[in-house]
Amino acid sequence: MSIIVQKFGGTSVANADRIRHVAKLITDTYRAGNQVVVVLSAQGDTTDDLIEMANEINPHASNREMDMLLATGEQISVALCAMAIEALGCPVVSLTGWQAGVVTNTVSRAARIKRIETERLEAELNQKRIVIVTGFQGINRNEDITTLGRGGSDTSAVALAAALHADLCQIYTDVDGVYTADPRKIPDARKLDEVTYDEMLELATLGAQVLHNRSVEMAKKYNVSLEVLSSFSGNSGTIVKEVAKRMEKSYISSVAVDKNIARIALIGVPNETGTSFKVFSLLAQNNVNVDIILQGIGHEDGKDICFTVAQSDLEAAAELLKQNRERIQFNRLETNTNVAKVSVVGAGMINNPGVAAKLFEALYDVGVNINMISTSEIKISVLVDQKEADLAVEAIHEKFFQMM
Amino acid sequence: MSIIVQKFGGTSVANADRIRHVAKLITDTYRAGNQVVVVLSAQGDTTDDLIEMANEINPHASNREMDMLLATGEQISVALCAMAIEALGCPVVSLTGWQAGVVTNTVSRAARIKRIETERLEAELNQKRIVIVTGFQGINRNEDITTLGRGGSDTSAVALAAALHADLCQIYTDVDGVYTADPRKIPDARKLDEVTYDEMLELATLGAQVLHNRSVEMAKKYNVSLEVLSSFSGNSGTIVKEVAKRMEKSYISSVAVDKNIARIALIGVPNETGTSFKVFSLLAQNNVNVDIILQGIGHEDGKDICFTVAQSDLEAAAELLKQNRERIQFNRLETNTNVAKVSVVGAGMINNPGVAAKLFEALYDVGVNINMISTSEIKISVLVDQKEADLAVEAIHEKFFQMM
Repeated sequence: MSIIVQKFGGTSVANADRIRHVAKLITDTYRAGNQVVVVLSAQGDTTDDLIEMANEINPHASNREMDMLLATGEQISVALCAMAIEALGCPVVSLTGWQAGVVTNTVSRAARIKRIETERLEAELNQKRIVIVTGFQGINRNEDITTLGRGGSDTSAVALAAALHADLCQIYTDVDGVYTADPRKIPDARKLDEVTYDEMLELATLGAQVLHNRSVEMAKKYNVSLEVLSSFSGNSGTIVKEVAKRMEKSYISSVAVDKNIARIALIGVPNETGTSFKVFSLLAQNNVNVDIILQGIGHEDGKDICFTVAQSDLEAAAELLKQNRERIQFNRLETNTNVAKVSVVGAGMINNPGVAAKLFEALYDVGVNINMISTSEIKISVLVDQKEADLAVEAIHEKFFQMM
Repeated sequence: MSIIVQKFGGTSVANADRIRHVAKLITDTYRAGNQVVVVLSAQGDTTDDLIEMANEINPHASNREMDMLLATGEQISVALCAMAIEALGCPVVSLTGWQAGVVTNTVSRAARIKRIETERLEAELNQKRIVIVTGFQGINRNEDITTLGRGGSDTSAVALAAALHADLCQIYTDVDGVYTADPRKIPDARKLDEVTYDEMLELATLGAQVLHNRSVEMAKKYNVSLEVLSSFSGNSGTIVKEVAKRMEKSYISSVAVDKNIARIALIGVPNETGTSFKVFSLLAQNNVNVDIILQGIGHEDGKDICFTVAQSDLEAAAELLKQNRERIQFNRLETNTNVAKVSVVGAGMINNPGVAAKLFEALYDVGVNINMISTSEIKISVLVDQKEADLAVEAIHEKFFQMM
């Protein structure tokens, strides 16, 4: 008998019909002879509605009370889903985060799971019950309710799968797997049967909204087999695991694009040690995440430092740098939001040094200019003009995947 | 320093404005130097909305899952109210039933409070925090969430007041106290400064929706001083306590009327022992509450048994009796819904035997016929034609309260 953890997001439980559909998927898994633990998000817009109610009363409400409020969203989902399963005639019990033993640290609204006390979960499974657990929430050592922040329900599911030594953790979402590129943009994009944790991590960082980063990190750490699949299509999805089977020639798994970035250039900073440190420690202290960094080798009258940030951080970052102009000593600050980051990800490129060259060739073929380059072991990102981004993705996808 | 428990119902927290108003009342009490524990119901129609959602998914959902669902209503209220209090600058914490240590038995949807473990409550009060607790809910020994059934938030408030040895338990409602009669009907009706627990119990049983019976019973048992007052008027309310101060001549405290009753008459039952037992044990076993009972002394060819039930129970009761006609052996069953029960309640009547005579005189004066009579130590109820009920109340109120 296998233990399977299934996670359904807010759109999958948005109304009575969808809850009934989810209940059917769950009971099918149960009736196939598995022990089933289900993790649910709040229904549709419930969390946003609750935040709006709170803002109307106090826009500066404490995180502790926000957690108390927001945790009700998932509690409603699990109770309703359990009722739908009761209607299908299977034994079931819903549990809140604290009932399921999800213990977190004390950071309200962005808590981290510290451990899961599985006694109750195991007792319910031994009673042959389907167990429906609220995602996104836990309890801290003060017995206060906490929530896990963005992507929290994915993390809850993976943590439960790890704690219960589950055979598989299925993340149901509105896409039916990981594709070689965004299928809405690239008609030739193909669904991948398997990707590695590292590839998935890079893809998550690149803005592919399939799985939250923290959940993939946790899956990698505890070696939890993940499956990303759609609750609507009924197709098998993409398995995320340590080593992925891949056809020999496909060094990369996916092409992704992120248009929500901006480039900042500091022109004419002193060509001396410590300048980069000053700039990036300043940004880090103020919670500005910096992505690609490019620093010229410099000459006598100074050097240039370029880097990218999320567009939402641009204003704060630029303001911060201007305030510290005297300390950093730059001549000019330039910003540019008409940029996009195009990335290829693939565990296969570790042993295949030709990937970068092939990428550059693809872009050269269609006349796309490369602005900045950043590489990791399994990823190559290039910064291009935003208006050329789609063309770049198309060209790269064709170059890497046509030969498969 | 006094400990004051304040309870606000669903209409008092129905929207942001009302929550802000309630927060003001709470912080005023806190700033006057009191330790304040607040008990809240779910907002306005929240509970009904949740029940509707459940019915759409599974009209036969288990009580356990219904409790899981319904408990979210109060959790939303307490979080929002705590936020409103934060906005007013007072230290505050909201607690669910289980966080507040409200331990109940395992009867879902109609749980009874077994004990309150006050460690957390006391710790929060010692930290000078206002504590906002979800009414209507607790946790059972299996760590499942339970709800207390109708009037549950009143009971939560009284139980917390008892456990914390509070100096006063204020029940805020949409009326501003207990009146000598329904002020919407009797313009001369006066608010009472004090009534006894027993009087309040009789009034609650008579359908005065001011306080739920169970909460008054608990207040009496643990000698908790209750105050019934309005969250809208700002006036002082009515204190409910063991012995009420009363002007010498007012033997009764209040006149009440209940039009939601029906009379059943069993005509021609055998004049032998055991008949009444058969009838009323049958009804009790089927959860039909019987109120006034009148049984003739009987003669050779049988006797009649009359009694009243709530109109909502009439159909079931009549059907049940007809099914058991052979066992009970009655000739005819008559039902009548055009009746009303008019009652006078007053601890003073124990030592004043003239109250009944005075009541009958009042009704005789205006030509109201008395159909059935029932008395307790501190209550006299008469059954009259429904169309004469208001006239009866008016006449009684004038007779008893004009001389004050």
